[in-house]
Amino acid sequence: MKCRVCKAPAVIDVRRHNANFCQPHFLKLCRDQVGKAIDQFAMLSPGERVLVAVSGGKDSLALWDVLLDLGYETDGLYVGLGIGDYSESSADYARAFAEDRDRRLVEVDLRETHGYDIPTGAKSARRAPCSVCGISKRHVFDRAALDGGYDALATGHNLDDEAAVLFGNVLRWETEYLARQQPVLPARDGFPRKIKPLIRLGERETAAYCILRGIDYEVEECPMAAGNKHLGYKEALNAVETTSPGSKQQFYFGYLERAAALFTACEGESADGIALAPCANCGAPTPGEVCAFCRLAERAARTQAVAAPVRKAAS
Amino acid sequence: MKCRVCKAPAVIDVRRHNANFCQPHFLKLCRDQVGKAIDQFAMLSPGERVLVAVSGGKDSLALWDVLLDLGYETDGLYVGLGIGDYSESSADYARAFAEDRDRRLVEVDLRETHGYDIPTGAKSARRAPCSVCGISKRHVFDRAALDGGYDALATGHNLDDEAAVLFGNVLRWETEYLARQQPVLPARDGFPRKIKPLIRLGERETAAYCILRGIDYEVEECPMAAGNKHLGYKEALNAVETTSPGSKQQFYFGYLERAAALFTACEGESADGIALAPCANCGAPTPGEVCAFCRLAERAARTQAVAAPVRKAAS
Repeated sequence: MKCRVCKAPAVIDVRRHNANFCQPHFLKLCRDQVGKAIDQFAMLSPGERVLVAVSGGKDSLALWDVLLDLGYETDGLYVGLGIGDYSESSADYARAFAEDRDRRLVEVDLRETHGYDIPTGAKSARRAPCSVCGISKRHVFDRAALDGGYDALATGHNLDDEAAVLFGNVLRWETEYLARQQPVLPARDGFPRKIKPLIRLGERETAAYCILRGIDYEVEECPMAAGNKHLGYKEALNAVETTSPGSKQQFYFGYLERAAALFTACEGESADGIALAPCANCGAPTPGEVCAFCRLAERAARTQAVAAPVRKAAS
Repeated sequence: MKCRVCKAPAVIDVRRHNANFCQPHFLKLCRDQVGKAIDQFAMLSPGERVLVAVSGGKDSLALWDVLLDLGYETDGLYVGLGIGDYSESSADYARAFAEDRDRRLVEVDLRETHGYDIPTGAKSARRAPCSVCGISKRHVFDRAALDGGYDALATGHNLDDEAAVLFGNVLRWETEYLARQQPVLPARDGFPRKIKPLIRLGERETAAYCILRGIDYEVEECPMAAGNKHLGYKEALNAVETTSPGSKQQFYFGYLERAAALFTACEGESADGIALAPCANCGAPTPGEVCAFCRLAERAARTQAVAAPVRKAAS
C-alpha cells in the first residue's frame, strides 16, 4: 500500500478516492479538502474571525486545528451540557487543545447560565435528549458568535453527519429542513453566518487526522445519543458505502448540485410570509413571541422548582 | 395476537399499520389497499382491459389475482428471459395460474422473437443483466399492451420495490428518473398507460397473500440479480424499517405528496425540448434513430453471429 502522491508507504486508504496516503500527504489532503469546501461555498474570506464550536470530539478539534493551520483567526466555544462524566472529560480535551495552542476557549455551562442541563431539560420538555441538545446548542452558538463579534460560527459536521441528516430529511421529505440543509447559512438579522468546513471529509478521516496529528479527543459517543435515529441512518448509509464507495459523497454533493435549489425555491416562497421578531425574553429572532430555547429553559426551571414537592405528595 | 377487525386469532402482523389480521381480513386488507391505490392515482376505470405483466413470482401473481377479484378484465403477459431453470420454472407458475383461472397468458420468448436471451444480451452489450432485462421487458411490455389493445399495462412493483428505486434515485439525485417515478404513467403516443397497483403493499404482504390464497409462485430470486445495487438499497431500507416501522411508506408516499412535483416541473421543461420519433426498426418512440431495445437486439445478434469464428481465430 503506497501513497498515491509520493509512493512512500501509506498509513491510510481512502476508498472514496480510491487512493492510499502517507502521513504527510494524508494531512495535506485533509487541509486541502477543508480549504476546497471553504472556497467552493464561499464560507470565509481571508482574515475573518471564526468561532469554532468544539465538543472535545475528533471532528471539532480536527476542524479547529485545520482552520488554525490555514491561517484563520479562531477561538473555540465549548458548551457544558451536563451529561455526567462524558461532559467533564469532553471539556478537558477541549481545554487541553486550546491551552496547547494558546487560543481562547469560550465556555458556556448550560446549568450555570440557563439553569438546566440536557438530562433535566429533556425530562422537563418530554423530548428526546438529542432534540433538546440541538435547540440548546444552536441558541448558545448564535449568541456567543454575535456577542463576540465573530464573522462566522464553524461547526464540525462531517460528510457522514450531513449525509445522515440528508437521509433522515428525505426519508420524511421534510422540505423545510431540506431547503435549509446548506454548507453555509448566511448571516441575517439576529443570526451569525454558519459554516460547515468539514463536509468533504468522512468521520474516519477526521479520526485519523487527530491520531496522526497527536490530538487527544473524546472517543466515547454521547451516552444519550445511543440508539437514536441519526445513528441508524448512518449505519444504513455505511452499508451502502461499503459496497459502493463514494455513495455518501455523491448523495450529499449531488443534492447540493441538483436538488437543493428546488427545495429552497419552493420553501422560500412560503418562508417569505413568516415574519421573525425578537424573542420577548432573549431577543433572538423567532416566529413566535418567545423563542423555542427560552420556552425550553423556562419549562425546565419550572419543572425543577416543583419536582421535589410533587414527588413528596405522590409518595 | 388477535385480528384488529374481528378479534379472531390473527395469522399475520403488519407492523407498518401496527395491527394484526386473521386470514379473511388480511386478504381483504390486500384487496382494499390495491383498490385504494387504483382510486387514489386514477389508475383504472371500471371495465377497462388490463394486461398484467407476470414473472411467476409472488408480486405479479398476487396482483393478477386481486385485479380479477376486483372485477377487472385481465390477461397475463409472460416474457421468457432465457435464464436457465429459473425462467423455466417461473413460466410454469405463470401458466398454472392462468390455466387455473381460465385466463389468457400472452407469452413472448426473447430468444424466439428477438434472437437473444438475458445472459447473451448482457454479454453482448457489456451491461449488467438487470439493465438489459429492464430494457427488454419495457419494450416487450409496451408492444404487447399496444398490439392487444389493452387500456393499461400493470406491473407488480410493490412498496419495497418502489422505495428501493426511490432510494437509488435520490442517492444519485437522478432528477430525470425521479420525475418519472410515478405510480401511473399516462398513455402517450406509442406508449401504453402503465400502472403499479401494488404500491400500498410490502413484499412480505404479497408473499403472505399468495400463501393464504394457495397461489404457487417462484420463490427463488433471479440468480442474475444476486448482489445488485437494488438489493443493497432494499437491505439498507429494511434496517431503517425495523427500527421505525412505516419508514418506507412515509418515504415513498411523502415523495409523491411533497417532492415529486418539484422534479416533474423541473424535468418537464427540459423534456419538452426532446422530440420523440418512431424507431426506424420497430416503430417505438425514441429520441434517436433506432431505439435502445433494437440497438441491444442488433448487437446481440451480431456478437452471436461472429462469436464462433472469432474464438477460432484467437486460439
